[in-house]
Amino acid sequence: MLLRMSTLFLRTLREDPADAEVPSHRLLMRGGFVRRAAPGVYTWLPLGKIVLDNVAAVVRDEMNRIGGQEVLLPALLPREYYEASGRWTEYGDSLFRLVDRKGADYALGPTHEELFTLLVKGEYSSYKDFPAILYQIQEKFRDEARPRAGVLRGREFHMKDSYSFDIDDDGLQRSYDLHREAYTRIFDRLGLNYVIVAAMSGAMGGSASEEFLAETPTGEDTFVRSTGSDYAANVEAVRTPAPPAPPLDGLPAAQVHHTPATPTIATLVDHFNAAGLGRTFTAADTLKNVLVKTRAPGEAEWEVMGIGVPGDREVDLKRLEAALQPSEVELLDDADFAAHPFLVKGYVGPNALLQNKLRYLVDPRVVDGTRWVTGADQADHHVVDLVAGRDFTPDGTIEAAEVREGDPSPDGQGTLYTARGIEIGHIFQLGRKYADVFGLDALGPDGKPKRITMGSYGIGVSRLVAAIVEQSHDDKGVVWPREVAPADVHVVGTGKGEQIEVALRIAEELAERGLRVLVDDRKGVSPGVKFTDAELLGIPTGLIVGKGLAQGVVEFRDRASGERSEIPIDSAADHVAGVVRGA
Amino acid sequence: MLLRMSTLFLRTLREDPADAEVPSHRLLMRGGFVRRAAPGVYTWLPLGKIVLDNVAAVVRDEMNRIGGQEVLLPALLPREYYEASGRWTEYGDSLFRLVDRKGADYALGPTHEELFTLLVKGEYSSYKDFPAILYQIQEKFRDEARPRAGVLRGREFHMKDSYSFDIDDDGLQRSYDLHREAYTRIFDRLGLNYVIVAAMSGAMGGSASEEFLAETPTGEDTFVRSTGSDYAANVEAVRTPAPPAPPLDGLPAAQVHHTPATPTIATLVDHFNAAGLGRTFTAADTLKNVLVKTRAPGEAEWEVMGIGVPGDREVDLKRLEAALQPSEVELLDDADFAAHPFLVKGYVGPNALLQNKLRYLVDPRVVDGTRWVTGADQADHHVVDLVAGRDFTPDGTIEAAEVREGDPSPDGQGTLYTARGIEIGHIFQLGRKYADVFGLDALGPDGKPKRITMGSYGIGVSRLVAAIVEQSHDDKGVVWPREVAPADVHVVGTGKGEQIEVALRIAEELAERGLRVLVDDRKGVSPGVKFTDAELLGIPTGLIVGKGLAQGVVEFRDRASGERSEIPIDSAADHVAGVVRGA
Repeated sequence: MLLRMSTLFLRTLREDPADAEVPSHRLLMRGGFVRRAAPGVYTWLPLGKIVLDNVAAVVRDEMNRIGGQEVLLPALLPREYYEASGRWTEYGDSLFRLVDRKGADYALGPTHEELFTLLVKGEYSSYKDFPAILYQIQEKFRDEARPRAGVLRGREFHMKDSYSFDIDDDGLQRSYDLHREAYTRIFDRLGLNYVIVAAMSGAMGGSASEEFLAETPTGEDTFVRSTGSDYAANVEAVRTPAPPAPPLDGLPAAQVHHTPATPTIATLVDHFNAAGLGRTFTAADTLKNVLVKTRAPGEAEWEVMGIGVPGDREVDLKRLEAALQPSEVELLDDADFAAHPFLVKGYVGPNALLQNKLRYLVDPRVVDGTRWVTGADQADHHVVDLVAGRDFTPDGTIEAAEVREGDPSPDGQGTLYTARGIEIGHIFQLGRKYADVFGLDALGPDGKPKRITMGSYGIGVSRLVAAIVEQSHDDKGVVWPREVAPADVHVVGTGKGEQIEVALRIAEELAERGLRVLVDDRKGVSPGVKFTDAELLGIPTGLIVGKGLAQGVVEFRDRASGERSEIPIDSAADHVAGVVRGA
Repeated sequence: MLLRMSTLFLRTLREDPADAEVPSHRLLMRGGFVRRAAPGVYTWLPLGKIVLDNVAAVVRDEMNRIGGQEVLLPALLPREYYEASGRWTEYGDSLFRLVDRKGADYALGPTHEELFTLLVKGEYSSYKDFPAILYQIQEKFRDEARPRAGVLRGREFHMKDSYSFDIDDDGLQRSYDLHREAYTRIFDRLGLNYVIVAAMSGAMGGSASEEFLAETPTGEDTFVRSTGSDYAANVEAVRTPAPPAPPLDGLPAAQVHHTPATPTIATLVDHFNAAGLGRTFTAADTLKNVLVKTRAPGEAEWEVMGIGVPGDREVDLKRLEAALQPSEVELLDDADFAAHPFLVKGYVGPNALLQNKLRYLVDPRVVDGTRWVTGADQADHHVVDLVAGRDFTPDGTIEAAEVREGDPSPDGQGTLYTARGIEIGHIFQLGRKYADVFGLDALGPDGKPKRITMGSYGIGVSRLVAAIVEQSHDDKGVVWPREVAPADVHVVGTGKGEQIEVALRIAEELAERGLRVLVDDRKGVSPGVKFTDAELLGIPTGLIVGKGLAQGVVEFRDRASGERSEIPIDSAADHVAGVVRGA
């Protein structure tokens, strides 16, 4: 491959685009890799297209290695399948919907669980047919509320999505593990610094879903790591360890106090510390009850419920939403309070909720035998020593309280601290959800139908291009890892003599040896501009044919280290080929 | 590459799908290459995906050879650009439209003239930047009224679209010629039998647009060829040669006749032949005036007009539509006649139209000095010897009359006959239409802006897969040309002994030599089923490891010719590799 900058459809930008907040967006725009076509919708220019293809090739290679079979599904998906799975509604505004000339509804595929389930159902019928891993690399569409940072979070983007089909849970675990290994190899080959985090709490258990996050300060996802172990998790997936339950015996009876002028947790704590009760209170001794309403997708009615968390912590709405997914959640408004007069705003306690049959879920720290200062369900009154398991019994626990640096790690080793990352991969044990919806069975060896269990696994291919740049750039431009670089070597001819002709000759020789070569053969462009462009474009190896030509030398440059050395022109091609092949 | 049928996601069908009318649809479905996801929307299964990629690779290779640069544009396109070019409206129901969460209108790209024009305008500014050829291979969306024949005419399909940008008309002609050559090489490499037909009449001239049609009886497009030359054209593009104009002098005056009971051209001709006028009339002597109404895109008002054609020919509505494009056309209904009382249904002559300022266009055969039997603009009356250029002067000519076998070829050599084909490519000199809309200029050497001239060029990549099958199959299945076949060789192991292990060993050896191998290693499947599948799948070369194994021989099969020969097992790999490489 030989690309000549004299004719290449590429114009670099000297200035940062006004709307580019993060380094990858800035550099991919300035280097002429992408251009914006609409909000969250991008065009890939020649060099960007090459990088995108290189990333896709690594993904494809590793998916094939684990036995993945490549197919290609359409983007236009009939409503009926998404209706059957419930996602037509669940996806909300993020689903692009359209109507065809005959009035039929379609979605633009955000992912393809439904169609893959039906595809396998159409072809396979016996347990002997399984396991199977199918994948595609294809354009996906999601109407993001806030597309941002160029191709990092777009509305039309390239994704590898794969789906595994197994006869039993062990098989699913094997398919899941294969994907985990493939993803590890992919991100290693791409030179990324990443962590694997537990991605879901809830019924399925931590191992059923993990995210691969490329660590970078500009990442959208906050996650936590442990100071004492390899533990890492999405904030939404952190499971709060329950402390040991103290014995109920011997605890004082609950007492209601008149607590005027205590509008905040702090003033409430001050009030009780001044009340001479013989002990010191902190915010952690109070139980804050936050009232929300939730609604399952497609339902008309809201359910009002209470969430109890220790008063020293806020409710983290993202964790709460994740815990209640796919239901939507809102805080109660004045009209809701008016409709439930037993809820005394500012003084809600567990019992008004429980006695009125409203669901009441508490933080896992609220174990039986813990005693709390909380609302007494009448204005200007709080109750002290309300004991869980004695004075009230919640309907269950919920992960809704904020996670803080210094919290104990759920694995019991060390404490948590937070970091930021970009989600580059997600592996997920779907189980039988879609197989149940579409009746995907296989005839078992005993002649009886067995329901298939599935996994779904995604990699954001276009996002990976941005994630690589986030982790691999300097103030002068991109520093492409060799595996995905738009070219192996960038030959630059500078000067008014025969330098450009010699540069072209060397470039051709390198291309003939099978290297992918970009040559700057532009006439009338200054050396300074050419060097600036070379650094911006970030090809790993540079070869400058310039002033030294008269002395028979050219300059070899390494983009990543910045190292430069003069080498005799006669050995230049050998030297470059050696460096590229040795890499 | 080594694909094993024991695990391949492939189930062939014994029966033809009920809705499959044409061979390619039938065989691509039966061979498990594609599956239907929705009307006109298809999934590519593993073997189909490989063929699709192989076809795309040939297209890419030849596009790169003419200096095309590959980019990738989004499918989601903002309405404003299509509004600016007028295509938002012109495309009518064929454009998939959608609204995003913020209420903004988008189209799913049917082709990308607008975005490419803007892309070049964003990067290039000087005459030195040109010429440029940009292309992409990408999914396109068109809401076809009648999707048919599987991937032959789908609503979501793969297309290579390229666009050329030149500083002047000579440059455009060069870019056009380069594409014509590239297309010729592409279709030759794909082993297609095709013709290049003139595709547009009208202002731009015949050479400004040509279609590449793969000849096949199942093709949707009718075209005509000449018995006496290479002339070939779309029926819509056939230009009728005008006969020499006879002198006006000495022609008899027009006379109105009472012609009751002449509801058809035939009865009218009979009437006059019986009227003793001293000559014999045929239908070709009558002038039939067909009344239509047309409306330009986006306009509210219809324009009523008359189309005059010799009475021995029907009006061909597709030719008429092509001639009036992008306006829509309908025949007049009773209400329209009621609104124009001077149009006497069945007796409309040129003069009622012309005197009432309605546009009147005639077939090119209606030259000055020709005399006609036509309507006299009053019930039960016709006029004889109404002379063009004397008694009426039409507003112009139009190509609306049907083209018939035996018509003289427009190039004056031979006569026309009809054939059918599939449109596989289209090259088109756009000129400055889009550059005018978006103001795409380049600063010329004189410092003045010069408007860029463009071409647009399409190849239906997914349609090509179907076109290849249409031309390359027999009653047993597909016969893939080697360049696009899903594998080079199909090794089949049959029998209960060690045949399958030996087949696998040979397959691995061939794969190690760099061949693309499909091996039938299925156990418990009869030889008959395996052979039937092999013929259906259509890999060019087959190698059967079966009964002969005991004698140290395997069977070599050529799918296209059906030739079979026994070869010693020790030389089998060499033999196959030789055949594949020699091809």
